[in-house]
Amino acid sequence: MSFQPHIQRVGVLGGGQLGKMLSQAGSRWDLNLWLLDKDKDFPAGTVNRQFVEGDFKDFQDVYVFGKQVDVLTIEIEAVNTEAMLRLEEEGIEIHPAPKPLQIIKDKGLQKQFYREHQLPTSDFQLYESKEAVIQALKDVELVFPFVQKSRTEGYDGRGVAIIKGEEDLPKLLDSACVVEKLVDIDKELAVIVAANKKGDIQSFPVVEMAFHPTANLVEFLLCPARVDAEVAQRATELAERVIKAYDIKGLLAVELFLTKSGDILVNEVAPRPHNSGHHTIESCATSQFEQHLRAILNLPLGDTHVLQPAAMVNVLGDPGYEGPVRYEGLDEIFQIPQVFPHLYGKQFTRPYRKMGHITVLGDTIEEAIQKARTVQQLIKVKA
Amino acid sequence: MSFQPHIQRVGVLGGGQLGKMLSQAGSRWDLNLWLLDKDKDFPAGTVNRQFVEGDFKDFQDVYVFGKQVDVLTIEIEAVNTEAMLRLEEEGIEIHPAPKPLQIIKDKGLQKQFYREHQLPTSDFQLYESKEAVIQALKDVELVFPFVQKSRTEGYDGRGVAIIKGEEDLPKLLDSACVVEKLVDIDKELAVIVAANKKGDIQSFPVVEMAFHPTANLVEFLLCPARVDAEVAQRATELAERVIKAYDIKGLLAVELFLTKSGDILVNEVAPRPHNSGHHTIESCATSQFEQHLRAILNLPLGDTHVLQPAAMVNVLGDPGYEGPVRYEGLDEIFQIPQVFPHLYGKQFTRPYRKMGHITVLGDTIEEAIQKARTVQQLIKVKA
Repeated sequence: MSFQPHIQRVGVLGGGQLGKMLSQAGSRWDLNLWLLDKDKDFPAGTVNRQFVEGDFKDFQDVYVFGKQVDVLTIEIEAVNTEAMLRLEEEGIEIHPAPKPLQIIKDKGLQKQFYREHQLPTSDFQLYESKEAVIQALKDVELVFPFVQKSRTEGYDGRGVAIIKGEEDLPKLLDSACVVEKLVDIDKELAVIVAANKKGDIQSFPVVEMAFHPTANLVEFLLCPARVDAEVAQRATELAERVIKAYDIKGLLAVELFLTKSGDILVNEVAPRPHNSGHHTIESCATSQFEQHLRAILNLPLGDTHVLQPAAMVNVLGDPGYEGPVRYEGLDEIFQIPQVFPHLYGKQFTRPYRKMGHITVLGDTIEEAIQKARTVQQLIKVKA
Repeated sequence: MSFQPHIQRVGVLGGGQLGKMLSQAGSRWDLNLWLLDKDKDFPAGTVNRQFVEGDFKDFQDVYVFGKQVDVLTIEIEAVNTEAMLRLEEEGIEIHPAPKPLQIIKDKGLQKQFYREHQLPTSDFQLYESKEAVIQALKDVELVFPFVQKSRTEGYDGRGVAIIKGEEDLPKLLDSACVVEKLVDIDKELAVIVAANKKGDIQSFPVVEMAFHPTANLVEFLLCPARVDAEVAQRATELAERVIKAYDIKGLLAVELFLTKSGDILVNEVAPRPHNSGHHTIESCATSQFEQHLRAILNLPLGDTHVLQPAAMVNVLGDPGYEGPVRYEGLDEIFQIPQVFPHLYGKQFTRPYRKMGHITVLGDTIEEAIQKARTVQQLIKVKA
């Protein structure tokens, strides 16, 4: 039978901004997703009535929710994979499948997976605790500088400590962790790749995380990345090898390091729509959200070519403000052509909370960057 | 104070597909509209929890709803304008304002308005009833051929009779009507124009209703229209004169006739997003839905340039089917690059019911037309 969007039951674990943007993509086809998260006032609940209040970390909540859908997916990794395994045994279609998801959720298993599959990644070692890291330093098994990442629970830069020397030791995280060699990075890149059950694979153009010239922070995401065609091709091929190795259906966002010596290494992955693909809504022929839906429903994958170069700015809560959100600068931003603010619907701001993103298109990437810089100076997120 | 989308209360009378697409545009900014219509299972209710069940033709329902919002707008003309006049007196901001809306709702008043304002339109005469039309024919005040339009309640081609001779007289509508001289039409065009309170005016590129080569039916909407630049400019200037004459803030869709002698005449207008602007979602730098929101909120109007030529196909219920809808051909359509189906979320189909639309982009308008022809052959709406 041909695709009947209005009677298809797709469930999503998580109801944050990714669930919101997935809902927005689906609703164009009258594909109305079902969402599971704690509070229907979360972002996805503002655009979707089919919101089940529950905890995606809870076995029973996930199991009961999953039994009611045809296809189950996620917008966050921190879900109850035991319930997903049970649902999979009972015949519910799940993308990403719980087994690769369990590997990806644990940064230690993820790194081991790359090593086992001969996928290039930085050198690493696993430790059980902060004490074990300190002991390894004493034993000279480990030397400065290094990056320590909590194996679980880290996101948006949390759960990561950069340890350059003795003076950084107070920053050490006290948890089971991956310790990685600090790589000499030329650029951070990302490739979002999709696969469906038919075996089709389709990548979006390579994205570059552009760092602020002085502050050590990602300032913009740029698409296409300012790299040689040969580098872009190698990055794309590597991302496609990674999705095949995991055998994931749906989207996989593959974060990569381009080293100063020209190697491309896998940093980490997310098996879902990702911050590094938000620009696709306006700048590519198909958005990452639509592509994820196509992929998990085994529909033909969409065309991913870039219509116009894009710079994407995250809208973060300004430091020093906490409380009901108040935006400044939107009126001014609306005066600039082809600037697309996406505000997620979070009612409260706090320092650095991700409140939205703004995609800026230009005829050239330089024009997009220039406009994005103006946008970034105008937008303020206060309380 | 700068624009705070999340606390702005915008009310919309009507919750059909236009309300749905307005909600989708607003929700990107966390501007969550309030909607009034009879049933929250109507299209807009699938993407918006803020749905008030009530009748937009009822004074009390409109009045009570309107008192709770900052700005009131419409997605259909057939609303209770008496309640809107009261709300306006009481300080509620309303776009389009009820006075021009009352003129536009009545095709007789609309035609008189163009005559009074020296806006070119076809010759016409008003009649009170079918009998009065027949009497005028007997008195030779009126001659064949002509078009009879019901003054109110007509939409989507209903309420219109084309009377070429005696044999068509049984088709005469029995209502107060406008009778227009049949114009020798070269092309039907439309221009969607927006105005805000600051006085900014911005038009979308001219759209062409392309008729089927043999059947007398609109087959596609094309943007940009296949007309000379000089014609496009005259059409745009006329549309801008019309919005200024009405003094409307928000969108005004101006339907035009390009006659075989090269004149451009105003046919009729709609003061809201319109079928002839659906392609803007994917093909223009700003969508008509976003533009309407910008205009009624007195924000800067968006850039309207065409990113890629578009052909738009309406998805209508196939004749011979009535009941719960079943689509055919979507899987095949998804294989064609840059084809964007929008299904409105109507659960029941009936012959010719507008169930959705599909926008097809191409590098050239010819490529878009060719793809649109394939799409039109593939999509079937059955029960």
